Amino acid sequence: MALIEYADAAPEVRAVFDDIKTTRGIADVNNFWKALAVHPPTLKRTWESLKQVMAPGAIDPLTKEMLYLAASAAAGCAYCTASHTAAARAKGMTEAMHGELLAVLGMAAETNRLAEALRVPIDQGL
Amino acid sequence: MALIEYADAAPEVRAVFDDIKTTRGIADVNNFWKALAVHPPTLKRTWESLKQVMAPGAIDPLTKEMLYLAASAAAGCAYCTASHTAAARAKGMTEAMHGELLAVLGMAAETNRLAEALRVPIDQGL
Amino acid sequence: MALIEYADAAPEVRAVFDDIKTTRGIADVNNFWKALAVHPPTLKRTWESLKQVMAPGAIDPLTKEMLYLAASAAAGCAYCTASHTAAARAKGMTEAMHGELLAVLGMAAETNRLAEALRVPIDQGL
Amino acid sequence: MALIEYADAAPEVRAVFDDIKTTRGIADVNNFWKALAVHPPTLKRTWESLKQVMAPGAIDPLTKEMLYLAASAAAGCAYCTASHTAAARAKGMTEAMHGELLAVLGMAAETNRLAEALRVPIDQGL
Amino acid sequence: MALIEYADAAPEVRAVFDDIKTTRGIADVNNFWKALAVHPPTLKRTWESLKQVMAPGAIDPLTKEMLYLAASAAAGCAYCTASHTAAARAKGMTEAMHGELLAVLGMAAETNRLAEALRVPIDQGL
Amino acid sequence: MALIEYADAAPEVRAVFDDIKTTRGIADVNNFWKALAVHPPTLKRTWESLKQVMAPGAIDPLTKEMLYLAASAAAGCAYCTASHTAAARAKGMTEAMHGELLAVLGMAAETNRLAEALRVPIDQGL
Repeated sequence: MALIEYADAAPEVRAVFDDIKTTRGIADVNNFWKALAVHPPTLKRTWESLKQVMAPGAIDPLTKEMLYLAASAAAGCAYCTASHTAAARAKGMTEAMHGELLAVLGMAAETNRLAEALRVPIDQGL
Repeated sequence: MALIEYADAAPEVRAVFDDIKTTRGIADVNNFWKALAVHPPTLKRTWESLKQVMAPGAIDPLTKEMLYLAASAAAGCAYCTASHTAAARAKGMTEAMHGELLAVLGMAAETNRLAEALRVPIDQGL
Repeated sequence: MALIEYADAAPEVRAVFDDIKTTRGIADVNNFWKALAVHPPTLKRTWESLKQVMAPGAIDPLTKEMLYLAASAAAGCAYCTASHTAAARAKGMTEAMHGELLAVLGMAAETNRLAEALRVPIDQGL
Repeated sequence: MALIEYADAAPEVRAVFDDIKTTRGIADVNNFWKALAVHPPTLKRTWESLKQVMAPGAIDPLTKEMLYLAASAAAGCAYCTASHTAAARAKGMTEAMHGELLAVLGMAAETNRLAEALRVPIDQGL
Repeated sequence: MALIEYADAAPEVRAVFDDIKTTRGIADVNNFWKALAVHPPTLKRTWESLKQVMAPGAIDPLTKEMLYLAASAAAGCAYCTASHTAAARAKGMTEAMHGELLAVLGMAAETNRLAEALRVPIDQGL
Repeated sequence: MALIEYADAAPEVRAVFDDIKTTRGIADVNNFWKALAVHPPTLKRTWESLKQVMAPGAIDPLTKEMLYLAASAAAGCAYCTASHTAAARAKGMTEAMHGELLAVLGMAAETNRLAEALRVPIDQGL
């Protein structure tokens, strides 16, 4: 799988990499963006969407990051679980919070499976 | 799919139903528990685990509920999505927060898929 | 979604329906086969594969059926969960066995999720 | 990802590790438990639930283990597939049984997908 | 689940609905957009991304639609499977093509599961 | 995980390997088949089904291969994603087509998730 480094990138890719680096205050973009640079329109659209979605709003940045992590882990994406665990820690997720998030994830998986295996009808009014 | 009502439940099932109703301050348990009552040991163990996991801790109850919802929606469980959306609203999730949670869920699904389709190697140090 | 009934089926579809009915000793095939009849080559190939896979072998028929149910429930297929729960009961799965199967399914979901969220390295020698 | 070894573990973690080793008659716990030790309450609760669920009951231990494997493989958890394949072999799953289990898993995946892609309505009475 | 009709929609929602109707030459948007209108920024971003992604390019529109259907069915989304099956038919997918697409989907599900259950190492050079 | 090489294979396995090599015009089968050879009946049935499904028909071979890739990536199978990306390239998928396929995959994942999280009712008539 090719990873496109800044030095080898086309101007349209560099522009996105530059915006990621500036927005996040980091020296280099991570592998996800280097891989996605194989298709510049998808790189640009994905980054712009992500920037909009993760901006502060009604939900604070740390909670958004933990929600992202929960969804990624529930979907079984190893890369995403690794990178969003790191991102959540950088935004303030403590070891205790990580432990509780894991517990919620595990519990949700169990009750999701049971609800589906039992084909539970949705409660009236929901 | 059988749903076991309180009136028809064995004493060990009633004891769990009573604890759910008391803990949550509700008049009746929802369908998940009535369906799970088909196997009393699983009913009891699941409820006790859930009660422990969702108790207040390093993460506040609303955030825990939104994490549960994010994981359930990511796993595609319709029943769980419906019930945890309702539970999150009851704990204070506003319309704006729900909208942002949906946006994070959608974005996570997209980047999860792209990371897997591109087989992105996990960044060094993570 | 179209369901093709025997009376309306082409000869190649009727031949498969007849074999299903004879093999299983039933009066009518269930909806899965009526839906799959939209593409006769897939109907025929799927039935022949299924017949081969579910034949008695090193694993007894009831256990095979419960494994099929476990896999279907883990994949979240509502139709398959419903039909294989019925099939397993018809082959001898008691209420107690169903309860324990549900417990295993729920536990597996929880530990699967935790193992992935923690990115646990596979144990040496496995 | 940190793995917590017995020598470095807190007393509450050691107590769980000791119980796993005694219950299973093994010299060391596997990586799953060492990783889960990052959150002692989840470690303890998960182990106690697992011990209860996998105890002999209406379903024999080998069948339970194969059901666990089927669910884990259907959920795509590589770690869990590896460890439960090993566990099932240790409990008596022969090469022929493993082959048939794989065949059931593959067949279930195919028919699950077809049933969902065709949106087959659940058969009356189920 | 609320569906927001045009008559009740805010101007920013109407603007998106109008663009969908014009782009697709249809009289009313389908339920997905009416549901997504609960969060106008996500409605707008999702539609603009979709319009860009599904525009004619190196892959023709019918093939793109069938790829969308394949991915949606593989992910088990019933709503998406229904709507993209209809969309693919509208773009020229014949009954025979639908049958072959189903066959590919089923076969992929089976070999995906087998490859994961066997933990097959990726071939050298890939 | 054992890979069975041609030199060590039983006659029934060699016969399948020979047919794969002849059909595809390749010097050696890939790892999937070597792993599946652990259970010769499943090896033979899977290959024969795959050969039938992937034969030219109403859908051309390249499109079939891209559909296989889309389904495999949506299911999160890393091995299958790698091998079907290579196969699609060998059949003519250009870099631009791969980029657009990735964009469709990502978009489908996002809208699938949103449709499920919003529990959108299927549009009338579908």
